[in-house]
Amino acid sequence: MADLKSTFMNVYSVLKSELIHDPAFEFSDDSRQWVERMLDYNVPGGKLNRGLSVIDSYRLLKEGQTLNDDEIFHASALGWCIEWLQAYFLVLDDIMDNSHTRRGQPCWFRVPKVGMIAANDGVLLRNHIPRIIRKHFRGKPYYVDLLDLFNEVEFQTASGQMIDLITTLEGEKDLSKYTVSLHRCIVQYKTAYYSFYLPVACALLMAGENLDNHVEVKNILVEMGTYFQVQDDYLDCFGDPQTIGKIGTDIEDFKCSWLVVKALEISNEEQKKVLHENYGKPDPENVAIVKALYNELNLQGVFAEYENASYEKLVTSIEAHPSKAVQAVLKSFLAKIYKRQK
Amino acid sequence: MADLKSTFMNVYSVLKSELIHDPAFEFSDDSRQWVERMLDYNVPGGKLNRGLSVIDSYRLLKEGQTLNDDEIFHASALGWCIEWLQAYFLVLDDIMDNSHTRRGQPCWFRVPKVGMIAANDGVLLRNHIPRIIRKHFRGKPYYVDLLDLFNEVEFQTASGQMIDLITTLEGEKDLSKYTVSLHRCIVQYKTAYYSFYLPVACALLMAGENLDNHVEVKNILVEMGTYFQVQDDYLDCFGDPQTIGKIGTDIEDFKCSWLVVKALEISNEEQKKVLHENYGKPDPENVAIVKALYNELNLQGVFAEYENASYEKLVTSIEAHPSKAVQAVLKSFLAKIYKRQK
Repeated sequence: MADLKSTFMNVYSVLKSELIHDPAFEFSDDSRQWVERMLDYNVPGGKLNRGLSVIDSYRLLKEGQTLNDDEIFHASALGWCIEWLQAYFLVLDDIMDNSHTRRGQPCWFRVPKVGMIAANDGVLLRNHIPRIIRKHFRGKPYYVDLLDLFNEVEFQTASGQMIDLITTLEGEKDLSKYTVSLHRCIVQYKTAYYSFYLPVACALLMAGENLDNHVEVKNILVEMGTYFQVQDDYLDCFGDPQTIGKIGTDIEDFKCSWLVVKALEISNEEQKKVLHENYGKPDPENVAIVKALYNELNLQGVFAEYENASYEKLVTSIEAHPSKAVQAVLKSFLAKIYKRQK
Repeated sequence: MADLKSTFMNVYSVLKSELIHDPAFEFSDDSRQWVERMLDYNVPGGKLNRGLSVIDSYRLLKEGQTLNDDEIFHASALGWCIEWLQAYFLVLDDIMDNSHTRRGQPCWFRVPKVGMIAANDGVLLRNHIPRIIRKHFRGKPYYVDLLDLFNEVEFQTASGQMIDLITTLEGEKDLSKYTVSLHRCIVQYKTAYYSFYLPVACALLMAGENLDNHVEVKNILVEMGTYFQVQDDYLDCFGDPQTIGKIGTDIEDFKCSWLVVKALEISNEEQKKVLHENYGKPDPENVAIVKALYNELNLQGVFAEYENASYEKLVTSIEAHPSKAVQAVLKSFLAKIYKRQK
């Protein structure tokens, strides 16, 4: 595993070096240094789960065969494209949310001398993806499918981000806009497609598959991504801050979290009133009232039930899939997230 | 001409309607309305020169043949992709520059309730381009070339924007960083590729041409785009505000304008000192001193000379091109901009 990660990091260095010597642009020393620093700051600092899972998935699709260097390089390059996509979203999201820290360091736009140049850096990160794909996949039969895939998934992610942003705008006037179905829609588009479907879709294309034949795989992964985000929302309030590495602020921030939509769904009129009066306020007293209501509604129990039902449903869907190799890919994803505490 | 523009606007309505019913995303009424309003506000309000020139160029490549409805539709759709690209850059540029107005109305991010959501709207505008291309060009032999073309040109534009941004950062400490070659590099990447090369490249692809065989056309158009931007810089200071529709502020804004790089090039030490002391200051007195120096250096004459030399060089290059149809396309572009006053 440590070995896989160091191979993966080596590919990062190769890709970065290619990008800062891209013949489509005449780099000056200043601009080359700028891009290099920007990439090092924003791209490789996360957990790299999305990127690494392309290699894992591809290996499982090849039924555990040892991959040759060329296959590892190409799977890694696509993994990095997903990490680049993630970096692009995060740089822009942090500007939009006026956030302070990301992955334990100041957000890129808060770094001295960067400021609003960060918006263009986000755009550059996004532009690097087709440059990487073109350089390494131009001759492959699935080249055009890769371009279509990244385009479609980016469109879905940006659309999910849009409903999240306009929902928060509306929700601030009227909490009752927050519903389970709206939450599901946001999560599915904003997170599940790019975090769960995209890595597997990349591996399927590399394995020579036609994605049109894998709609069921997409549905299962989107379902799994939704479950993953519900866990995230749950841990924000009920997780151990020591374990998850941050103190949740979804309640203060008026987030359309699974907890609040579930609470609104099962509350009586009086409880709804408490939520309306206390949700989305910075004062710790308001937050405490919301948390007390969550406990009164037994949201921990409701979540445990959701988690079990979701797990059972996913296992059943996975086992109905005709290919054992595809089942292995899906089960590997599920095993990584089931009952996670962080 | 009025007819062409109304046909072009009809295609806009078709494309917009397709985008807000894209099956890749589940639109709610709120989100559909948001996108529609955002598009109407940001996409069709410019002069549409870039978009219309795809149709013009394609017609000239077909040696003046009357285009059928399908050809007009497809050329218009690509023209709109360029207008969408432009809208995406402008929405993000206005955020980065903290601008106030654009095309005679408040910048999108300044519209009440929009704010930083504008950054995601910029991303959405960008994402619409491959959606349009996929819907209407998926079956064409040049589909993948279109995707590559838009990707490459966007990368070049974002890279040009990057050097412009970091140059201004450096220039504020040290004006001597502003040089003719740096100015040329910024203009070429930030403006010329997408405004001049891209429309013609789209028309060439529609006409069945391989862009690898048209490097000379690209060079000529990039040269023309550079000349166009030099005019822009010139008119900012020496144009008639009544005619160009705005009062230039490049001097106050510390812009890396052709005028300042030319002035630095031909100044003696004393004149350079005057520039260093007065350029980029908001006070009208400083601006007046810079303008007086521009006159002392006879920049109007230097520009007239540049304009003539540039025109002669372009005509010579164009007439050396083996295809009369391609010559016609290039001459039509040149005629539209030569000695323009606005």
